[in-house]
Amino acid sequence: MDIVIPIFPYFTALDAIGPYEVLRSLPGATVTFAAATPGIVRTDSRMVGLQADASFAEIEAADILVVPGGWGTRAAMSDEPLLDWVRRIHATTQWTTSVCTGSLVLGAAGLLRGLKATTHWAITDLLETTGATYTAERVVRQGKIITGAGVSAGIDMALTLAAEIAGEDQAKAIQLAIEYDPQPPFDAGSPAKAGPRIQALTGMLKTDPTD
Amino acid sequence: MDIVIPIFPYFTALDAIGPYEVLRSLPGATVTFAAATPGIVRTDSRMVGLQADASFAEIEAADILVVPGGWGTRAAMSDEPLLDWVRRIHATTQWTTSVCTGSLVLGAAGLLRGLKATTHWAITDLLETTGATYTAERVVRQGKIITGAGVSAGIDMALTLAAEIAGEDQAKAIQLAIEYDPQPPFDAGSPAKAGPRIQALTGMLKTDPTD
Repeated sequence: MDIVIPIFPYFTALDAIGPYEVLRSLPGATVTFAAATPGIVRTDSRMVGLQADASFAEIEAADILVVPGGWGTRAAMSDEPLLDWVRRIHATTQWTTSVCTGSLVLGAAGLLRGLKATTHWAITDLLETTGATYTAERVVRQGKIITGAGVSAGIDMALTLAAEIAGEDQAKAIQLAIEYDPQPPFDAGSPAKAGPRIQALTGMLKTDPTD
Repeated sequence: MDIVIPIFPYFTALDAIGPYEVLRSLPGATVTFAAATPGIVRTDSRMVGLQADASFAEIEAADILVVPGGWGTRAAMSDEPLLDWVRRIHATTQWTTSVCTGSLVLGAAGLLRGLKATTHWAITDLLETTGATYTAERVVRQGKIITGAGVSAGIDMALTLAAEIAGEDQAKAIQLAIEYDPQPPFDAGSPAKAGPRIQALTGMLKTDPTD
């Protein structure tokens, strides 16, 4: 089970590491972080450097593709070599997935046209410019494409996928191994639950697709 | 707000990245990953290489210390230079925290004697050899020391800490920014909820402290 996670400047660390931490425990799983050039790729905050062990050119196929989000997806949406690679890998994947604004990359590659998809709550309009129909669910499956909502949703997305691949018991064992028994101290994890005042505090405003 | 996250061979990626993704959004926060030697440190799976931007020797103080877990904590428990550094940093922190088996490192440094603490469910006996009293809660606070349970609990721990530092509204805004509205597909995130059959499937057996 070859899993590849492309990373690019200004990606969000948890978008990538959440699903990695779940999927790497699937029987026989190998996870490879890949980038345009092997080496350290800095996240959106610049505070994390994650090593890409392979170049995109070296990865010709994967069973599972996981595209993380982050501010860097804006540039990625017009990065033709990256989009070509995503399309090429997707052609033979068993599963093609995204977390957060990673769905913008799948969309820009033309993979979401006419499909339902989810993404970070702040950029739903931008997602729809790619031909997808935004669906306000945490995990959205359309055939072999699975999209997850913002950042932390990658853990739920990956557990859903783990169950599809290895069965519910294996997925539950992974959930227990990472002690994923979430108990957030507040109930503010969605725009509706948080309300407009907390939404404004995030500094994340709903995007205008004509921006 | 200087936050330092020590990393060492065989740490668990999500233990470090979960709290990082929360705490890095605190106003004025800077997160530094540090190691014995700057450079790439490989995780427990060896599939992730995270860059340590500083050496322990370069970090003389921090407002917040976050010690992640992973199999590497077994070796870390007798790594005297690391333990000395942890004690030195702890002396002037505002908050000293751990995720998962990171509590073994705090314990081995002598910081948990007589205190309640939590850790990964599979190594509770080992934690108690350090003088701590294991407490089966997701986040345990004792003065300025906060310990989190296994792996994913670092997100809940960090949100709790974010509220202490910057107030509930800021913590809620961070929760919304990372869309932390968890919806695990199964309810198997604790040993009690998962039951003995799933516990056995994890391959993680309760440790014998005399091992």
